[in-house]
Amino acid sequence: MSLVVIGSVAYDSIATPLGARDDMLGGSGTFFSLAASHFVRPSVVAVVGEDFRADDIALLEAHGVDLAGLERTEGRTFRWGGRYHDDMNGRDTLFTELNVFEAFEPKLTPIQRQSPFVFLGNIQPRLQASVLEQVSAPRFVAADTMNLWIHIAKDGLLDVLRRIDALFLNDEEARELTGKRSVVLAARAIQALGPSLVVIKRGEHGAIVFNEDDIFYTPAYPLEHVVDPTGAGDTFAGGFVGHLASTGDVSATNVRKAAVVGSVLASFCVEGYGVERLTGIDRAAIRERAERFAKLVRFDLPEL
Amino acid sequence: MSLVVIGSVAYDSIATPLGARDDMLGGSGTFFSLAASHFVRPSVVAVVGEDFRADDIALLEAHGVDLAGLERTEGRTFRWGGRYHDDMNGRDTLFTELNVFEAFEPKLTPIQRQSPFVFLGNIQPRLQASVLEQVSAPRFVAADTMNLWIHIAKDGLLDVLRRIDALFLNDEEARELTGKRSVVLAARAIQALGPSLVVIKRGEHGAIVFNEDDIFYTPAYPLEHVVDPTGAGDTFAGGFVGHLASTGDVSATNVRKAAVVGSVLASFCVEGYGVERLTGIDRAAIRERAERFAKLVRFDLPEL
Repeated sequence: MSLVVIGSVAYDSIATPLGARDDMLGGSGTFFSLAASHFVRPSVVAVVGEDFRADDIALLEAHGVDLAGLERTEGRTFRWGGRYHDDMNGRDTLFTELNVFEAFEPKLTPIQRQSPFVFLGNIQPRLQASVLEQVSAPRFVAADTMNLWIHIAKDGLLDVLRRIDALFLNDEEARELTGKRSVVLAARAIQALGPSLVVIKRGEHGAIVFNEDDIFYTPAYPLEHVVDPTGAGDTFAGGFVGHLASTGDVSATNVRKAAVVGSVLASFCVEGYGVERLTGIDRAAIRERAERFAKLVRFDLPEL
Repeated sequence: MSLVVIGSVAYDSIATPLGARDDMLGGSGTFFSLAASHFVRPSVVAVVGEDFRADDIALLEAHGVDLAGLERTEGRTFRWGGRYHDDMNGRDTLFTELNVFEAFEPKLTPIQRQSPFVFLGNIQPRLQASVLEQVSAPRFVAADTMNLWIHIAKDGLLDVLRRIDALFLNDEEARELTGKRSVVLAARAIQALGPSLVVIKRGEHGAIVFNEDDIFYTPAYPLEHVVDPTGAGDTFAGGFVGHLASTGDVSATNVRKAAVVGSVLASFCVEGYGVERLTGIDRAAIRERAERFAKLVRFDLPEL
């Protein structure tokens, strides 16, 4: 089933303890789409500037991302810069240049408006709502958010929450949104605000999936080398929602599978700078890591 | 099979965002033994002062902890005080009074010297080595350690590592001991120093078990209310090693089960102050939570 995603298509400049790269293809819409593209043909709603490179367009198209909804306008592409701490978990934002995203008003194509699966990437809740209003009869809507919107646009965010099926956010954001210290109580409180599926992302510690009464824990795959964590959360969501859209199945059993698919994709993402690793894997590599993943958590119940 | 443990038997004073308690029964030897006592009769090597309360002796004995190796000497019992941060993860040590532990020279009873399973709690490596020298032919020796010994007694710690089968430590300690940023590479580096089994504890994020080439990830059970995290790591180790000792089986399959048993016990530990919850559960409660645990991570491989 088709999947539409709104999110940034951007150029990222990042520095890690191991190295630095400038102006790499990035953005939440990019990571999400490239992850989902392993399973469906995701359709992007976003805007880029005149400086957006032709080879990046070619790369996205070569990976089966539908760019019919990608606007190109005067000005510069959205840019973000960050520096990772020594432990590769914490990071500081060095700069955020909204550029062409500043005046962006998303307009879905007629085909995008028919999409049964929708992902609202981490943007201003007002824009997320505007996308929702354009989709005629979505079957499954997931959204991401961040601290900034909890602080400056909470009413808009609460309005979006009432209208979606799934929310992706990290544990700190879940605590800030609800005032609950326990991640379990925070997730329950978010479910009470609307989405029956709440996915708490924990970076190198994986994710906890609260799906109605069901709780599923997926670890992050333990890696020897993490090169660049940028985009891991969007990649996780892209694999997760991409799997749901490709199967058209949002049952509890399939949601667990989707979380594993997301974790597998995210584990590849962080092994390279930007999207380089995510665009260098095939279905066999994904399958092989999913099998390792299953082995990672498998145990027989002790006789107690 | 019998299990001997050296570790502190102490009085803890703790403050959390929810409340405070003074002079509660605690210490690594206490938490470890009470967890292990659900599966074997652990035998403690430790020292307490004249102020050690008769009802604490009675409680340990009632739970099947063998106190034949518990010395009682002039002076005050070891005391530790800590204050937990708002997120219940970080904590500050408010005071550490070694008291009777300062001059402690462990002397094992003749029966303890025959023990096939040995746990060297987090104490000065020289004392851990002294215990090892007294055990005649151990089959499985596990140890815990901490930053302090990595900094002030590294040679002694390296000597202990060469002679043990398993090391329990947290991820920060693993990084400090090896200089490796990746927890996978840090665990591999520790294995090269001696123990084939390296258990990286991650608090509310669970643990990763590196057993020769096998990697197993056990989450921490997601809880609605965490009351007091003190002793969770020792409780985890107590359930883990207690299960191995009770089954006499250190195969890879059973090590995975043991890690789950440890996680289950630790999940109870943090639900109450000090040892109160750990001493209020029975085998049925442990079994029921182990079953929930299995459900928490179970998934079918996605068709990829």
